[in-house]
Amino acid sequence: MKQRGILVVVSGFAGAGKGTLMKNLVGKYDGYALSVSATSRKPRPGEENGVSYFFKTREEFEAMISADELVEHAEYVGNYYGTPKKFVDEQLDKGNDVILEIEIQGAMQIKKKFPEALLMFVMPPSAEILKARLVGRGTETAEVIDKRMKRAVEESEGIENYDFIVINDDIDECTEKMHNMIQSSKYTPDRQKAFITMVREGLKNL
Amino acid sequence: MKQRGILVVVSGFAGAGKGTLMKNLVGKYDGYALSVSATSRKPRPGEENGVSYFFKTREEFEAMISADELVEHAEYVGNYYGTPKKFVDEQLDKGNDVILEIEIQGAMQIKKKFPEALLMFVMPPSAEILKARLVGRGTETAEVIDKRMKRAVEESEGIENYDFIVINDDIDECTEKMHNMIQSSKYTPDRQKAFITMVREGLKNL
Repeated sequence: MKQRGILVVVSGFAGAGKGTLMKNLVGKYDGYALSVSATSRKPRPGEENGVSYFFKTREEFEAMISADELVEHAEYVGNYYGTPKKFVDEQLDKGNDVILEIEIQGAMQIKKKFPEALLMFVMPPSAEILKARLVGRGTETAEVIDKRMKRAVEESEGIENYDFIVINDDIDECTEKMHNMIQSSKYTPDRQKAFITMVREGLKNL
Repeated sequence: MKQRGILVVVSGFAGAGKGTLMKNLVGKYDGYALSVSATSRKPRPGEENGVSYFFKTREEFEAMISADELVEHAEYVGNYYGTPKKFVDEQLDKGNDVILEIEIQGAMQIKKKFPEALLMFVMPPSAEILKARLVGRGTETAEVIDKRMKRAVEESEGIENYDFIVINDDIDECTEKMHNMIQSSKYTPDRQKAFITMVREGLKNL
């Protein structure tokens, strides 16, 4: 019997390397699915429906909210973004672990709704390296970098609410560690309730 | 810098295969040390001091209790048994993870004293298999087997206090999973306080 997968929430500072890490994880190991968000914003050239996002009209998105079809949602700069429950549930039922990248407030919402979700926080090996990575991208102004560093300070206050921290030093080593954390987490007593009950009842009835 | 190791407490039903599992773990991977107990009982032929046990006189053992030199201790059939703090500390300082096999009440004592200890409970894949293993040993009377099964029912009530359950089906697979659980556990926020503080302060001071 294939066990239901677990919902894995990944947060972390901008520049910590979440994106590469998740792509690596899904590419290297079987049994993972990256959650695809729904949005009411217009597709950009090259963005495919169901791959980059599930594209919805504002009305469709609001209907999804009303019907409680989203795991979480938020509005940024006039557009809705959210995580469709259907995709997540389908993948979990198939036995896949669903990876969901989301910022810290969203992660806390999910933990409330799904206490069995696994929360992982991706960190750079040091603050200096985080700054060097943001500067190194060469795509951001000094002002944007400064804003991101300030935001990192804020976000760092919430790290203790996560189950694991993932220190992104060497990408391959880090991917393997992340995989092991996720798979190990399936063996906590609260995620093995059915098995424990089975053995307990079996012991009583022998 | 080599990080300090963690204290790993292993409990489980008689017949669940704890002994083989721990021997396998220590044989297959570096960085583990099996805790050696102290006892006031006399050595049996072939038992070596510091390997099977640290053999002590009753007076020496009581002096260790008074001096708070034991992680935990208990008295069985007129003999003292306990875990010397010195060995555990030395190994942890070296960066080794120390494995300590102990029954459920002892495990709870350790969790109180060392909240950062990792508690693992070894389980058979089913109650039937546990019974079959006990019967298969061929060394126990039906009465002893019955007593062990009753004891297993009692012990099973405490499983939720453990961090992980280790399902001992295939021994090699199980050893690898156990290793991954232990290594993953080093990345919970409460075991990475120094690192989190370092990054947090670093972010503020940049």
